[in-house]
Amino acid sequence: MADLYLVLLHHPTVDKNGQIVTTALTNMDIHDIARSARTYGVKRFFVAHPVKALRALALKIMQHWESGYGSTYNLTRKDALGLVRLELDLDSTLTTLDRETGMRPRLVITSARGGGERVTFEQLRQELRERPEPHLIVLGTGWGLAPEVTERADVFLEPINGPTDYNHLSVRSAAAIILDRLCAPR
Amino acid sequence: MADLYLVLLHHPTVDKNGQIVTTALTNMDIHDIARSARTYGVKRFFVAHPVKALRALALKIMQHWESGYGSTYNLTRKDALGLVRLELDLDSTLTTLDRETGMRPRLVITSARGGGERVTFEQLRQELRERPEPHLIVLGTGWGLAPEVTERADVFLEPINGPTDYNHLSVRSAAAIILDRLCAPR
Repeated sequence: MADLYLVLLHHPTVDKNGQIVTTALTNMDIHDIARSARTYGVKRFFVAHPVKALRALALKIMQHWESGYGSTYNLTRKDALGLVRLELDLDSTLTTLDRETGMRPRLVITSARGGGERVTFEQLRQELRERPEPHLIVLGTGWGLAPEVTERADVFLEPINGPTDYNHLSVRSAAAIILDRLCAPR
Repeated sequence: MADLYLVLLHHPTVDKNGQIVTTALTNMDIHDIARSARTYGVKRFFVAHPVKALRALALKIMQHWESGYGSTYNLTRKDALGLVRLELDLDSTLTTLDRETGMRPRLVITSARGGGERVTFEQLRQELRERPEPHLIVLGTGWGLAPEVTERADVFLEPINGPTDYNHLSVRSAAAIILDRLCAPR
C-alpha cells in the first residue's frame, strides 16, 4: 500500500481569467482538509504558500489548536492539525518528502476541468494498493493549478463529475470526495 | 428517481458534552454545501436557524452573490446559492416542502456516530432510484443532531467510515461525501 500525502498549493494557480496568481491562505481550508486527511489515513498534509507572513499567521492559528487554549477545548482538531506542515511551494514539499522518505513521490495532479489523458479514480485506487512509492495528491486553490504544475503530473486524475454539468466544488469538498473515492473501505 | 433535498440544522444540536445547543450560522457552510448540492443535482438546500437576526445576516451575504456585486464577479456562486432557502427549523422546512411538492419527504438522518439500525449508502442509493417520494437529507452542526431529531428518521444513514477510527469530518466535507456516494454517476 502506497503512503498517501496531500499538498494544497496557493501558487502558481490561475484566476477566473486564466492569469497566474497567488491565492490567499484560508484558515478553513487547513482545518477541513486536515480533518479529511486524518479520516482517510493520509500521512501528511502540506500547505504551501510563498508569503512568509501568511505562513507565520497560519502557524499561529494552528498553535492555538495544537498547544494553546484550543488544544484542551477540542482534541479532535489538535489530532488533525498534527498532520499539517507549512511549505513554500511544490518543490520545497518534494524536498521535505525526499528527506523524510528517501523517495520521490508520484505526483497526482487534480483539476475540476476535463481534457488530456486522465487516470480514473478506480485506476488510481488500484495503483495505490499495488505500488510501493509514496503518492502526493496536488490540490489547487483559486480557479485551479497553473499549467506549469499540471504538466508535471505522473498521474493526471479525472475530474469529479456529478450528474450535472456544474463543476465548481470548493477545494475543501473536492479534497473530501477525492480521499473518499480513493481510500474508503469497501 | 426521487427528488433530493438537503437541510442543515443549527438547532436542536448537541455540543461536545451532549447538551442541547443552537450553533452559529457559518457562511462557509452555506457556500460549500450549496456548491456540492448544485454539483449533485439536489433540488433545494435549506439552511435552518431559529435566530431571525442571523437568518437576516445570511440573507444579506447571499444577496451580495445573487444580485449584488458578487453576482457579476462570480456567476458560479450565484448559480449555487440559488438553491438555498432560509428556514426556522426542521418543521418549517417540512411545511415548505409540503406546500411546494404536496408530499411529505422521507427523512434521511445523518450522524458521524455509529449505533442503531442503519441503512447503508448503497441501499439508500438504490432506494433513491426506485422510490417516487422526495427525500430530505438532514445534516447537523456542532457535535451532531439532538436525539429528538434523530428519532424522527425514516432512514438512519450509516456514518461515513474511512480506514481510520477518526470520525470528525467537517459538515461541509461530510455533505460532499454523502452526495457523492448517493448521486455520483457510475
